[in-house]
Amino acid sequence: MNLNALHKIGYGMYIVGSHQGEKRNAQIANTMFQITSEPPTVAVSINKNNLTHEYIKASHVFSASVLGQTAPLPFIGGFGFKSGRDTDKLKGVNYKVGQTGSPIFLDNTVAYLEAEVIQDVDVGTHTIFIGKVVAAEILNENPCMTYEYYYQVKRGTTPKSAPSYIAREK
Amino acid sequence: MNLNALHKIGYGMYIVGSHQGEKRNAQIANTMFQITSEPPTVAVSINKNNLTHEYIKASHVFSASVLGQTAPLPFIGGFGFKSGRDTDKLKGVNYKVGQTGSPIFLDNTVAYLEAEVIQDVDVGTHTIFIGKVVAAEILNENPCMTYEYYYQVKRGTTPKSAPSYIAREK
Repeated sequence: MNLNALHKIGYGMYIVGSHQGEKRNAQIANTMFQITSEPPTVAVSINKNNLTHEYIKASHVFSASVLGQTAPLPFIGGFGFKSGRDTDKLKGVNYKVGQTGSPIFLDNTVAYLEAEVIQDVDVGTHTIFIGKVVAAEILNENPCMTYEYYYQVKRGTTPKSAPSYIAREK
Repeated sequence: MNLNALHKIGYGMYIVGSHQGEKRNAQIANTMFQITSEPPTVAVSINKNNLTHEYIKASHVFSASVLGQTAPLPFIGGFGFKSGRDTDKLKGVNYKVGQTGSPIFLDNTVAYLEAEVIQDVDVGTHTIFIGKVVAAEILNENPCMTYEYYYQVKRGTTPKSAPSYIAREK
């Protein structure tokens, strides 16, 4: 068995945000997909240790801002390799508060959606949150970041807490 | 709300196969993602009306063969716009039977995995099958098909039964 085959699964990259009251946080995720078209629902898989997980559990809402291909690594890293428990990730970042109260990111992104959680599925280290899409907008027609582009071209890396983390053979 | 924003979600494309005894079937899916890395698990979202759904429910296993970017439209269409109830989709197609009994496709693909279902989640029109990966191999290093490439470059289309079907505005 060669688990590197899992790297052949295609993904986009997203900033998934949520809130608890006036506290807001967000993290990078690559595992989002549409579940049904009628009604429009999406799923995201979030590590149970993450602050965003705690906020989604509390508020039952989340946002997902779709990263554009030109998003710089330091911008992505600001959401991805630190915890909102230790630092205010949103400080100095251009965002608006969406109708669900979740942060929506306006720089280096191409679209966003907001969802209300209708089901959550315990899958061990992670929870899959399934949400009904309640807001969605396209910001521009720039190309989207793919996980493959992030890894191969941008030389980005993946934290151990990600669903798609695999100890790379090389 | 502009539901076309959902088209900005990134996906690969897969031939998802399963079996019921000696009967085998497969279909195109774009909604697969890795759920956890320890143990390695993946999720696929399958329409309840599909024969492959019936087979996965019966056998509790599935395979996913990752399509390469050069896969011709007629090859993809052979799996995607017809039901295995009406025709033997595997006739004339180069495949092997994997360790789970599911078909693994060897032409126009770059990798495959097989999984044993450990959880299934009813999400209305579809079921999300969560499977533990029990086999996985890379076949070659050709680029993977992305859903965006399929739609924009290959001018492929999406059947109404797909999770990502949206009546396109144009």
